[in-house]
Amino acid sequence: MTHFGERLAAAILKKGNSVTVGLDPRDRQLPMELLERARQRYSDRAEQVAAAFEEFCCRVLDIVAPLVPAVKPQAAFFEEWGPAGCAALARVMRRARALGLLVICDAKRGDIGTTAEAYARGYLAGGDSEAALWGADALTVNPYLGRDTLEPFVRIARERGAGVFVLVRTSNPGAGTIQDLREGNGTPLYRRVAAIVEELAEETRDGNRYGLVGAVVGATYPTELAELRQAMPHAPLLIPGYGTQGAQAKDVAAAFAADGSGALVNSSRGIIFAIERPEYAARFEPTQWERAIEAATRDMISDLARNTPAGKLQRP
Amino acid sequence: MTHFGERLAAAILKKGNSVTVGLDPRDRQLPMELLERARQRYSDRAEQVAAAFEEFCCRVLDIVAPLVPAVKPQAAFFEEWGPAGCAALARVMRRARALGLLVICDAKRGDIGTTAEAYARGYLAGGDSEAALWGADALTVNPYLGRDTLEPFVRIARERGAGVFVLVRTSNPGAGTIQDLREGNGTPLYRRVAAIVEELAEETRDGNRYGLVGAVVGATYPTELAELRQAMPHAPLLIPGYGTQGAQAKDVAAAFAADGSGALVNSSRGIIFAIERPEYAARFEPTQWERAIEAATRDMISDLARNTPAGKLQRP
Repeated sequence: MTHFGERLAAAILKKGNSVTVGLDPRDRQLPMELLERARQRYSDRAEQVAAAFEEFCCRVLDIVAPLVPAVKPQAAFFEEWGPAGCAALARVMRRARALGLLVICDAKRGDIGTTAEAYARGYLAGGDSEAALWGADALTVNPYLGRDTLEPFVRIARERGAGVFVLVRTSNPGAGTIQDLREGNGTPLYRRVAAIVEELAEETRDGNRYGLVGAVVGATYPTELAELRQAMPHAPLLIPGYGTQGAQAKDVAAAFAADGSGALVNSSRGIIFAIERPEYAARFEPTQWERAIEAATRDMISDLARNTPAGKLQRP
Repeated sequence: MTHFGERLAAAILKKGNSVTVGLDPRDRQLPMELLERARQRYSDRAEQVAAAFEEFCCRVLDIVAPLVPAVKPQAAFFEEWGPAGCAALARVMRRARALGLLVICDAKRGDIGTTAEAYARGYLAGGDSEAALWGADALTVNPYLGRDTLEPFVRIARERGAGVFVLVRTSNPGAGTIQDLREGNGTPLYRRVAAIVEELAEETRDGNRYGLVGAVVGATYPTELAELRQAMPHAPLLIPGYGTQGAQAKDVAAAFAADGSGALVNSSRGIIFAIERPEYAARFEPTQWERAIEAATRDMISDLARNTPAGKLQRP
């Protein structure tokens, strides 16, 4: 079973960039043509939306698969539409893997003991696409329940060549209300979690530069991001917040090691709904939403290449 | 829309107890007859297990619906089996509501902004069973992402007469590695979270004794449980850990207000797989697993009535 760190490094080198496209479909923002077609096929509203999500996401995948190493479907948007949404999510993840993309399922799961194991067995397929019904290469997990609750995810990820990204510092405005809580010696909670992540990453390197345990660190807090890159030298970082949430390339530069490795930078709405952004709305007709997605993806790749160490990545 | 606090109090008074039955189906522990029947209906392994889970859980519901106020399906065990498992979960939750049970979906979700909203809209049906595809009366949520990420759950719960149970102190051995982190003034993280929960509970009482925001506090930490009951007088408590995880009635007594209100005590494996426990295996044949479930439920009700303030609840 190929180690997740090796698979991640290979995917990044092959595409020559670290861009991750977030699949956050929302019914009100889908192209009208897709919703219309789904309405003709299904009478049930949830089935309609799920079918439109699936077609939309698969068309996004076709555009971005030649360009970027990874995609990050957000489970919540699919689950909102019930079992039909879940079935669409599973098919989208399978399609992404078939196109050679790494799939990071952003489900932020977390539970204790054998319950955590059930999530891990269900989501983490890693290198063997038949190993788990949801077929993800990696899963985001929440550390609140304690270090022992991360271990089942790590163990099963290791068995399967999969990865785990632990929430350390999230990108929302109120992240600090819990994550900045400071111990008597001044250490904030997010540093305590980072220390656990680095330990798990170091323990699971198996000769690779990075372990199979990484961290989610929001680009909206650049100071903490730089601090956390230092604190977790063996953890790959997954960075949300670029684009729509307000962070720019200069804000994510510190997420990378000097050679451009070690981070995936995610943009969701900024890419998949690029046609709504003034710069692309000016260049493309509303029906040309796929061209807007391609342009936004290429622009993000260039932006990161120019303004972060990601520019040092070897091109294919 | 009837307030969740009122719905919860009415359900507890109607049944005269505070027992919550956890639906944690596991394929290796299911009665053979159910798995065999599912094998005859489906060729796909996930479909087989999902069908067996659904039949098993529906038979559990038929037994416990006349006896207890609430059930707590554990999403992980269903999700492990992919979209088929999710479809089974949705049907089990719908069936539970049709039988008059409150359904607490134990999915421990947590995310930011509009993503949290998507989870809330998908899960929290509350008093209107058509309002959400998963049709839960309440959802467990994880506070690590910060106070602002709890608010979408609370707002949508309020609109729908639903409830939210925030993880405060979990029942696993390693809970303290994160939740006991102490601020400079000695306050542990779980007390910081409890203060947020009490604020949200107080703000959402709308004239009821308890708010629609409650807390998950493990019975395996009785000292913290007593402390947290005091710290959150307006939050209903959801208490896992009784039975298989080792806590006894005396350990959960402090979760109740003096009049027996304010808490739901959950048992999962100890009830649904009661036939595996020596005391029931001695009384029932393996095929009499349903009688073991009924006996274990009644025994738990009696145990809590004798050894906790829950005995003061008015009987129907």
